[in-house]
Amino acid sequence: MASAQATTPIDVPRGLSGVIVTETQVGDVRGTEGFYHYRQYSAVELATARTFEDVWHLMFHGELPDAAQLKAFSAETAALRTLPAAVRDALPALAHAGVLSGPLAGLRTALSLLGATVGLRPLYDLDPDRRRADALAACAAVPTLVTALHRLGQGLQPVEPRADLSYAANYLYMLTGDEPEPDRVRAIEAYLISTIDHGFNASTFTARVIASTGADLAACLVGAVGALSGPLHGGAPSRALDMLDAIGTPDRIDPWIRERVLGGERIMGFGHSVYRTEDPRSRMLRGIAQQLGGPLVEFAVQVEARVEELLAELKPGRELHTNVELYAGVVMELCGLPREMFTPTFCAARVVGWSANILEQAEDSKIIRPAARYVGPPPPQALPAVASC
Amino acid sequence: MASAQATTPIDVPRGLSGVIVTETQVGDVRGTEGFYHYRQYSAVELATARTFEDVWHLMFHGELPDAAQLKAFSAETAALRTLPAAVRDALPALAHAGVLSGPLAGLRTALSLLGATVGLRPLYDLDPDRRRADALAACAAVPTLVTALHRLGQGLQPVEPRADLSYAANYLYMLTGDEPEPDRVRAIEAYLISTIDHGFNASTFTARVIASTGADLAACLVGAVGALSGPLHGGAPSRALDMLDAIGTPDRIDPWIRERVLGGERIMGFGHSVYRTEDPRSRMLRGIAQQLGGPLVEFAVQVEARVEELLAELKPGRELHTNVELYAGVVMELCGLPREMFTPTFCAARVVGWSANILEQAEDSKIIRPAARYVGPPPPQALPAVASC
Repeated sequence: MASAQATTPIDVPRGLSGVIVTETQVGDVRGTEGFYHYRQYSAVELATARTFEDVWHLMFHGELPDAAQLKAFSAETAALRTLPAAVRDALPALAHAGVLSGPLAGLRTALSLLGATVGLRPLYDLDPDRRRADALAACAAVPTLVTALHRLGQGLQPVEPRADLSYAANYLYMLTGDEPEPDRVRAIEAYLISTIDHGFNASTFTARVIASTGADLAACLVGAVGALSGPLHGGAPSRALDMLDAIGTPDRIDPWIRERVLGGERIMGFGHSVYRTEDPRSRMLRGIAQQLGGPLVEFAVQVEARVEELLAELKPGRELHTNVELYAGVVMELCGLPREMFTPTFCAARVVGWSANILEQAEDSKIIRPAARYVGPPPPQALPAVASC
Repeated sequence: MASAQATTPIDVPRGLSGVIVTETQVGDVRGTEGFYHYRQYSAVELATARTFEDVWHLMFHGELPDAAQLKAFSAETAALRTLPAAVRDALPALAHAGVLSGPLAGLRTALSLLGATVGLRPLYDLDPDRRRADALAACAAVPTLVTALHRLGQGLQPVEPRADLSYAANYLYMLTGDEPEPDRVRAIEAYLISTIDHGFNASTFTARVIASTGADLAACLVGAVGALSGPLHGGAPSRALDMLDAIGTPDRIDPWIRERVLGGERIMGFGHSVYRTEDPRSRMLRGIAQQLGGPLVEFAVQVEARVEELLAELKPGRELHTNVELYAGVVMELCGLPREMFTPTFCAARVVGWSANILEQAEDSKIIRPAARYVGPPPPQALPAVASC
């Protein structure tokens, strides 16, 4: 029995740009300041100084854990890394099917199956503790799913998760089967933390729209993964690295960039819809990449500096800086991640942010149901006579 | 390389109620007039006078087909009903997994797998003809998927689709294995047509948000199915019938309804967020139910009349009438559909509306990315010292 309240149409900018859909305590992006935060803390500070489990706790519980809470939280989430047998058994078929449509199609299917297998109930029917427990389990399973799907796609056996490793270390371990170097663990952990949340992007918004119907957690996450798979959102994070490869050498930066900008093409890894400044994630990840060091980093820094100069010349006033894509790609490459794992790795972090948003949305009883303006031929037109065959 | 345009926050009603997200030529709902339309035609007239294939063509191509177009379209879509072997082989496991989370969790997983299996490419990378072909194939497969999942869940073998039957007749045939009676085919066909589209509801909006990222068709449809599974959207369409069962006899209508309304409960099947009048779908489906006849229909009509009187007395000024749920349930029950198939049957129609909306959204290059207002403790707060274990 819904309210029969009628509404007056309200015009807003295309793509809902700047339209305040809801209030949130999860976090925010301040585009003009080049600053973003999770809860009340700088996301970059968290990524630099804290563990993934610390920040996951912050996102789910609203506060950083104390020592005892962190120990319990780490043990609880580590125990949730192992997949139900029915899901594990289905993964080879899903990995095979996902080859053509990309790794996120495999994750999308696997997460959907996992939710059904564990019998998730609608968020609408659950109390907040039960919802949070469901979300913990889903987040803990994503690294296991994406690494297993990747290995199966390569003809390798999945590596079972290890509960004695941190979230970040276990992630790299499940990918390769080898215990990772500490500097790589720390680099990938900082990347993962920096990627957990970032305002009301399309995938987070998708998750919240679905959550507003009271659907189960998997329904929300599967929609978010689908949105993230779109090329206009997170669907091609290795594009910036591919560009570095295509440019090849420092002397080719100028002609390569000029040709594309003058031809109206986008330059991957530069510009962001929210930031007018340098992307704070980019700055942090450049620092991490430089600590790891090597020729790829040096070349990336050269390309970044020259492309910013060229864009300032060719697109004056646009304030086009590197976004998260360029140095995220460099850090992941340096940590040994294959390029087809860049977006799944992004998911392994963002699932925590999606979940925090879903848990918050589930507290709101109002369904998200906007309107559209019909601009076709005016109805009702009389139906034409039925065509006879 | 995205535009670095900043935006001023814009406050709008909760749940985006009345907020115009886009222009559309797919159709519209005029809540104050009790009228809705597909393209330029009354949806109720289409449901009364046309075949499902006619209206599907209208939704996809913008015009009703002539005789030759209808013949070709019917043959083309009928040939797409058969599932790829990899999907068919996976269905028993999906049906088993979906038992606990409901039939839409099974459909969600199966559609995701189907998309990956046929190797759907991002909408962003495809031309309109290729997108439409992908959508035709997905729509044609949904009846096969939902009936097969249902039968497998019942311990029965799926029934292979028949290309010589109409969409509606084949649907009932795959469910039961028997060729259906013409009056039931016509009744369910009218229901299916009336359900194809209905404005910017949460599932349609979800599909369009995902489509705005350029993701593949399955990503969009899977998100929409997830949204539809929410109890506040389409997740419980047998609730109104369950209420008829619970009331039981005409003499119990008054005490049963009074007790619940005075206790603050919602009365299922009454009230709609958009219509201030009688729901036009309800009026049409009541007529169809009355043509089929029988004691369930008579009782539903009695309950409807008395509940409207009681709601006018107990909730004056609210204009609470039956919505689509009550008589949709009655029609489906009279056509022999088990209650757990009510929402999947809804999906078998709505997938055409979702697809028409996705195809339209794919023509728009602007990603849907709204904003939120942060209302938590102000950042940045200094990080507390790391707890030592």
